[in-house]
Amino acid sequence: MSNKRALLWHIQCAIFFNMNSGFDFIPSGTVTSSNGFLAGATYAGIKKEENLDLAILTSEVPCVAAGLFTRNRIKAAPVVLCQRRLSDRKATGVVVNSGCANACTGEQGLADAEEMTALVAAAIGAPPEQVLAASTGVIGEMMPMAQIRTGIKRIALSREGGHDMARAIMTTDTVPKEKAVKVEEGGYTIGGAAKGAGMIHPDMATFLGFLTTDAMVEPVFLQSALKQAADVSFNMVSIDGDTSTNDTLLLLASGLAGNEIITSSTGQAVLFQQALDALCIQLAKALALDGEGATKLFEVTVNGAPDRAAARQVARTVVSSPLVKAALYGNDPNWGRIMAAAGRSGVEIVESKIDLYLSHICMVKAGRPQPFDPAEAVKRLNRTEVTFTLNLNLGDGSAVAWGCDLTENYAEINSHYTT
Amino acid sequence: MSNKRALLWHIQCAIFFNMNSGFDFIPSGTVTSSNGFLAGATYAGIKKEENLDLAILTSEVPCVAAGLFTRNRIKAAPVVLCQRRLSDRKATGVVVNSGCANACTGEQGLADAEEMTALVAAAIGAPPEQVLAASTGVIGEMMPMAQIRTGIKRIALSREGGHDMARAIMTTDTVPKEKAVKVEEGGYTIGGAAKGAGMIHPDMATFLGFLTTDAMVEPVFLQSALKQAADVSFNMVSIDGDTSTNDTLLLLASGLAGNEIITSSTGQAVLFQQALDALCIQLAKALALDGEGATKLFEVTVNGAPDRAAARQVARTVVSSPLVKAALYGNDPNWGRIMAAAGRSGVEIVESKIDLYLSHICMVKAGRPQPFDPAEAVKRLNRTEVTFTLNLNLGDGSAVAWGCDLTENYAEINSHYTT
Repeated sequence: MSNKRALLWHIQCAIFFNMNSGFDFIPSGTVTSSNGFLAGATYAGIKKEENLDLAILTSEVPCVAAGLFTRNRIKAAPVVLCQRRLSDRKATGVVVNSGCANACTGEQGLADAEEMTALVAAAIGAPPEQVLAASTGVIGEMMPMAQIRTGIKRIALSREGGHDMARAIMTTDTVPKEKAVKVEEGGYTIGGAAKGAGMIHPDMATFLGFLTTDAMVEPVFLQSALKQAADVSFNMVSIDGDTSTNDTLLLLASGLAGNEIITSSTGQAVLFQQALDALCIQLAKALALDGEGATKLFEVTVNGAPDRAAARQVARTVVSSPLVKAALYGNDPNWGRIMAAAGRSGVEIVESKIDLYLSHICMVKAGRPQPFDPAEAVKRLNRTEVTFTLNLNLGDGSAVAWGCDLTENYAEINSHYTT
Repeated sequence: MSNKRALLWHIQCAIFFNMNSGFDFIPSGTVTSSNGFLAGATYAGIKKEENLDLAILTSEVPCVAAGLFTRNRIKAAPVVLCQRRLSDRKATGVVVNSGCANACTGEQGLADAEEMTALVAAAIGAPPEQVLAASTGVIGEMMPMAQIRTGIKRIALSREGGHDMARAIMTTDTVPKEKAVKVEEGGYTIGGAAKGAGMIHPDMATFLGFLTTDAMVEPVFLQSALKQAADVSFNMVSIDGDTSTNDTLLLLASGLAGNEIITSSTGQAVLFQQALDALCIQLAKALALDGEGATKLFEVTVNGAPDRAAARQVARTVVSSPLVKAALYGNDPNWGRIMAAAGRSGVEIVESKIDLYLSHICMVKAGRPQPFDPAEAVKRLNRTEVTFTLNLNLGDGSAVAWGCDLTENYAEINSHYTT
């Protein structure tokens, strides 16, 4: 086994079997649980309803920064700004708003995003190019800059401000998503807040995520660790198959924990990656469960795929299937829809080799239906977390994806968003 | 312009501008409108509710036959059977049922499909290998062969039987889909019946389609004409993004019209293709409008794509977007969702070049929002047919795709299908 594969295997074991994890989730942890980070939020008047809609996250010291962004060809102004500014892998603060996406807004949109960061930079005493921006909301409307200028002045920053920030980034989300893990051995913390009730899809869909750590981390490793964590978490979540113009995931590392610098070649890299993966998976599962109109979380594990990429593809196709999601909502043990979704995933699966389980109930063995107790199946479907496992029996590729059920409320919520 | 491109252009002009089409839709036309075809149906007891669920289509003479099938890796038994039997491009009859997909049923499923065709072959006096089969319904259940044996005996064949056949293939469809065109110049007819309320998606999703013609057509051209027609019709329809194990499109040509044989090199080929395309497009639009829970038909035209494949990809991504479909349901002129869907289609679009129209209302010009009257936009969205046009201004590729809105009823219908 190569070093890289050994590392991945180690990480997966640690996460899935929770063996000697070396880190713990902090009760009420959030994006400002890491040492040196402050946040605050206000209702600036961007949203119609009076809810927090503008937030600032800052670090007491300049940070090493990593970012991942939408692959949509239509990129919102703040995404363009972040991609430019992260070329030096440094940042000190982030300004974020909900209610307006600042997408399809041209040069003025970019100027508005720049002004927002300049105002925050002035307030915190940092160079403007060290402040990043993110937005979520309606596409094609200009930023209401008068309200934003006033709003930024009003925001008070504090160690507890992460909770308000987690609320300020919500759109159709019903609950804030925020978590933090403490890595005892390294003496550092990783925290985060995310949003994304609608348009969540594999491949970084709308979705905003802000992560912080007080660990000292080498910049190139920080970026690769973020990519790896996103690949096993946010990129394995699907709510509706749409991806957005604004997807942004940022990770700022302040280095205030005073640890020995973590690089890809240090032993601490494995632990850091495990903790970051675990944090992102918890946030991703929270996003899936809070999918628009959703009533339950849907976890699909694919084993025995030809390789990891194939396993990911099958798992993501199954959790994205509207028919599977609707059956899940109705507690309907219609496993044929899972087989059909796997069959159209693009992976060369072999029907006669497939085993399919609902929790521990075997529904299909070697491609053939197995007798099962429908009442017991309905009981297991009628839980807040429903798990399916597909064994393709073709190789050793594995992956886990998360989704939610499709309910009448999805159409209801999404048919009246701008009006 | 190459001959092929000239041909395509000719066809598109004829269809979209209805110039000298050379063919007419027959009032109450159906799959048995072509000379020499008979059909009949019965309630065999496969469905729980007493509705027609078993049908036979036959020709008075052996036919040249063409077929297209699902690309799902999980293929139902009747699909496997058809693919084997069509190697000689000949068929005389088809047996089809709804209520049971005969998928994931292994060797027994294949034996059952073979027995169904053998029973029909005996009844019509044809060799068993000249009878094809198709099924639609729940995956993973064995065919109720006792009922099917009795049912096949009960079916009476007639020239009018196409109407019953169109009903017998319905699952969650609310209306039968059947059409026929008469090509005066060639003296022949093309008829068809199709089903597919759920799981309809670009790339031949569950969907059954049965086409007949009394034209005499060269077998290889018949297959290529069917592929071309499917590519501009059924493969451009999306209802929910799922594709099935059972998709089947068959075309039988009896040759009874006594026309000069149509080959790809004869002048008649263009007219035959036009008529076949038009028939398939009408059936495809009927499928889209009858999408599960749908209240309106949604037509997206993409112009100015780098090539035709790119235009198809963008058009299909937009009509498949759950967020676009939900906005359509709510008469919400949220054009940003269309831009975002186009942006994630995988085509290298350029934001600053895009024009977007709702009917004739320009909503986006060169990537920037244009002022429009929201009341007028809502009025146009509140119609049974809503059309959007995206001009990418990158090349000369064009395509049209059809879909429907996403309503609360979709989740309702699909959450209780097997139970």
